[in-house]
Amino acid sequence: MAERESQIVLGLDPDPAALWPGGLEGRSSQDVEVPPVQRAGVAILRHCLALIDAVAPACVAVKLQLARFEVLGATGQTILSALAAHAREAGLLVIADGKRGDIDVTAQAYADSLFGGRETPFGPVPGLGADMITVNPLMGRDSIEPFVAAARAIGAGVLVLVRTSNPGAADVEDLELAGGGRVWERLAGLVEDLGEDLGRPGLGGTGGESALSGGEGGLSGGEGGLSDVGAVVGATAPEHLLRARELMPSAVFLLPGVGAQGGRVEDLSPAFAPGRAAGLITASRSIAGAHLVAGGEPAVAARAEAERLRELAWGLSG
Amino acid sequence: MAERESQIVLGLDPDPAALWPGGLEGRSSQDVEVPPVQRAGVAILRHCLALIDAVAPACVAVKLQLARFEVLGATGQTILSALAAHAREAGLLVIADGKRGDIDVTAQAYADSLFGGRETPFGPVPGLGADMITVNPLMGRDSIEPFVAAARAIGAGVLVLVRTSNPGAADVEDLELAGGGRVWERLAGLVEDLGEDLGRPGLGGTGGESALSGGEGGLSGGEGGLSDVGAVVGATAPEHLLRARELMPSAVFLLPGVGAQGGRVEDLSPAFAPGRAAGLITASRSIAGAHLVAGGEPAVAARAEAERLRELAWGLSG
Repeated sequence: MAERESQIVLGLDPDPAALWPGGLEGRSSQDVEVPPVQRAGVAILRHCLALIDAVAPACVAVKLQLARFEVLGATGQTILSALAAHAREAGLLVIADGKRGDIDVTAQAYADSLFGGRETPFGPVPGLGADMITVNPLMGRDSIEPFVAAARAIGAGVLVLVRTSNPGAADVEDLELAGGGRVWERLAGLVEDLGEDLGRPGLGGTGGESALSGGEGGLSGGEGGLSDVGAVVGATAPEHLLRARELMPSAVFLLPGVGAQGGRVEDLSPAFAPGRAAGLITASRSIAGAHLVAGGEPAVAARAEAERLRELAWGLSG
Repeated sequence: MAERESQIVLGLDPDPAALWPGGLEGRSSQDVEVPPVQRAGVAILRHCLALIDAVAPACVAVKLQLARFEVLGATGQTILSALAAHAREAGLLVIADGKRGDIDVTAQAYADSLFGGRETPFGPVPGLGADMITVNPLMGRDSIEPFVAAARAIGAGVLVLVRTSNPGAADVEDLELAGGGRVWERLAGLVEDLGEDLGRPGLGGTGGESALSGGEGGLSGGEGGLSDVGAVVGATAPEHLLRARELMPSAVFLLPGVGAQGGRVEDLSPAFAPGRAAGLITASRSIAGAHLVAGGEPAVAARAEAERLRELAWGLSG
């Protein structure tokens, strides 16, 4: 993060009907032997690779929206692995955004799938190799712990949904509790508790040499003990950010909702209170679709928008 | 359901380290060219096909635990499709258990993936073809509506997490609200609201000729207006069942937690108050692992256990 002076996360959320020109080349293929799912897959892969290449220098991570790849079945899984590998080669961290949550054995299977794979009687099965994953905490602490344990074992991180960016967040997350506070504030407490299990301050002792566990470019440790259990806090409700930071002083915040959903970087400074590495600003449609607003080549417009966000955030958090 | 006199759902939740003998044959393969993930995939596919063949006559549906297949990457997606097709051929409904939940466009992508696929500029991309899917409601109404709309368009159904079967359910779902009631009771209200949008009573007018929308073997309509928005209510806390039924009089309940998690069929009668089709009892490890308790051939023991559960539930709900 320090090396790139960036807190910007490129969201890869490809809509097959809204790819960059060139990505659609496969559409007019005369080769009727190739099924639509594979032609869509090639176009999406090409689009995402071009997007990564265009904006990587302005970003610190990519966020893979798993749904968009799952809709392509087996083809989508192959593309996911290829994109994760390409992002790593471009020096970016990989965030797998699937918002999973389930009972213990199932959570373990999801964690294996998204992090480092698992040993089986047939030999090792590889995982996606994500550095961070998003997790849904509705089912409670025992549904999150397997994700945290799996992340901690490899120096990766977990980002727990706390207060999301969509209007519907008001329906459940904002409900007031009899004991005071709101549901999302209780979720924030859970995040803080799970992070404290680590024995703060600092991740250095346990995390090994991963991207998240210290060193100059790491997400934590170097910033004085950021936790490996972070939170998703929508950028669309900045009035909650200050309170969220109070409740989770050492959590990394993933901040979705900038751009297409209406959030503004200028409102996010509380996220950076513990240090520059404490906030990750994710933008998807506003970067990939920048040319629709600014005109010009998609790659050039995307890079300019990512660079604009990067400068704004880095300046704000200094 | 009426035809099979069964409310039993076979959970397919295969652990590669606990397959039926025979499923492990691939382990000792001399063909070192075949990577572990494919050998594991073949063994899991074989295990699940054998399990379906053994118990199908005692069941009404299979529940695919998506995590267990996702851990096998692209191979897992291919297996999922094959198992869904085999289950349909065996006359079973298919429940995709992924507990997804996300903002609108993402929820739509998940729905396309698990139900009927989607149109793209490259041609139609197929979906898994599930009859029902599980959904996580933490992000609120607008995160569930795309699933409900997609289900309704094809006469399928959605099962919303309301009160789950794990101990951690107490952490968030059981929190008391300032306005009275608990979080899970509010989720139950959301389920009821979303079901009412349909214009009850009865699904007959909108659902088309699907398995869920009426007719002799259907899950609803024939039972006098069951909703296409159901609820996941754990069988491990039967004290909540009566209240859940009060709050959701026309919802189908998916009841996990029987067997390995400690739930008992005998305690589930409130689920069936609106009719026999109003409760689906899902069992995974207790069926697949029945031979570990009862001895004998795995297939024979599994069938006997499924048959025992079927008789018990059918008798209870009569």
